[in-house]
Amino acid sequence: MTTPAYSRLDVDERRRQLLDASARIFTERRYDEVSMSEIAAAAGISKGLLYHYFTNKQELFRATLEDAARDIAIRIEPDESLPPADRVSASLGAYLDWIEAHEASYVRLIEDVGSVSEIRQLVTRVREDTAVLIASQAVEGEPPRALVTAALGWLWSMDGVCLDWLARRHMTREQVRDYLLATLFGSVMAAASVEPSIKLQLG
Amino acid sequence: MTTPAYSRLDVDERRRQLLDASARIFTERRYDEVSMSEIAAAAGISKGLLYHYFTNKQELFRATLEDAARDIAIRIEPDESLPPADRVSASLGAYLDWIEAHEASYVRLIEDVGSVSEIRQLVTRVREDTAVLIASQAVEGEPPRALVTAALGWLWSMDGVCLDWLARRHMTREQVRDYLLATLFGSVMAAASVEPSIKLQLG
Repeated sequence: MTTPAYSRLDVDERRRQLLDASARIFTERRYDEVSMSEIAAAAGISKGLLYHYFTNKQELFRATLEDAARDIAIRIEPDESLPPADRVSASLGAYLDWIEAHEASYVRLIEDVGSVSEIRQLVTRVREDTAVLIASQAVEGEPPRALVTAALGWLWSMDGVCLDWLARRHMTREQVRDYLLATLFGSVMAAASVEPSIKLQLG
Repeated sequence: MTTPAYSRLDVDERRRQLLDASARIFTERRYDEVSMSEIAAAAGISKGLLYHYFTNKQELFRATLEDAARDIAIRIEPDESLPPADRVSASLGAYLDWIEAHEASYVRLIEDVGSVSEIRQLVTRVREDTAVLIASQAVEGEPPRALVTAALGWLWSMDGVCLDWLARRHMTREQVRDYLLATLFGSVMAAASVEPSIKLQLG
């Protein structure tokens, strides 16, 4: 019997295929409910070969999350060819595109954020890095922490708004984007109004 | 041997004492790690008596969460004797007081929100009810969903900001309160700007 399982793929392609299968399965069911055997079966390879790539389920899960985070980071990277104000709008639009295209994964990720320490660590790190990046756009030099806190709070609000939007679809994608853009600028302004050390440089 | 364990308390007092012990223990350790025997020991009563009040750990945990939610709800209830603008500020101040006084419980609650379905359900319900309450203050009649979504996003941001503040204490309590007040008004204005059916009535 020949299955795609035992087809010859190079290491990168195989890894890619495994991460895709893993993302699919971890989206459908909770971390605790998934076994390595199932993932191997879904990817059409032997369990032994799966363990050759990932030493355990935790490592595979972490790699799957890192892969998604990298994918998002690439898509939302600011487009330097655009004027500064349009860059944020474009990045936000790209983020909304990603969560619409990966709705089930996104919802599971945000809802399960406390249940698996890998998810918590990843979401915490991604939010922190993104908040520092956002805050850095608004001031010269290293941003005061109160400004990073504001960006962090805004990122939390984005997930709350997006979950409600995905569940109800009561707003258009453009309304969600414009709403989030307005509250991002509002958060930056509010931070500057309570913390005098924040000297805004809005482009 | 006489311990407070077997002192005679009336039913309400005993229940109160059990919920306090339970809140303390569930704050110190994760739900999965805590046993009913331990809670009984901490409250100084027999395990049998504990089961007389709560049929299982899940029920005790749910009652403990409900108790905390009720405590917060009472404290943040709008003070009708104040002008409308001051009411929000007072409620927000009361909320910040509560999370400062119960810091460890609050941090555990928000960080564990995805891990135990009771916490997720409670936090989801409390955020939803509070968002409807906030949105209802800004319009006449039933608030359009986009306005509730905005209030919901703001509540998410509040938890993100508060966690960062509690971990770092880089802002004063007044700065946090004023920042959150400003972003709440900003969120309401932003919602009205993207959704024309929102007719604000700001008092």
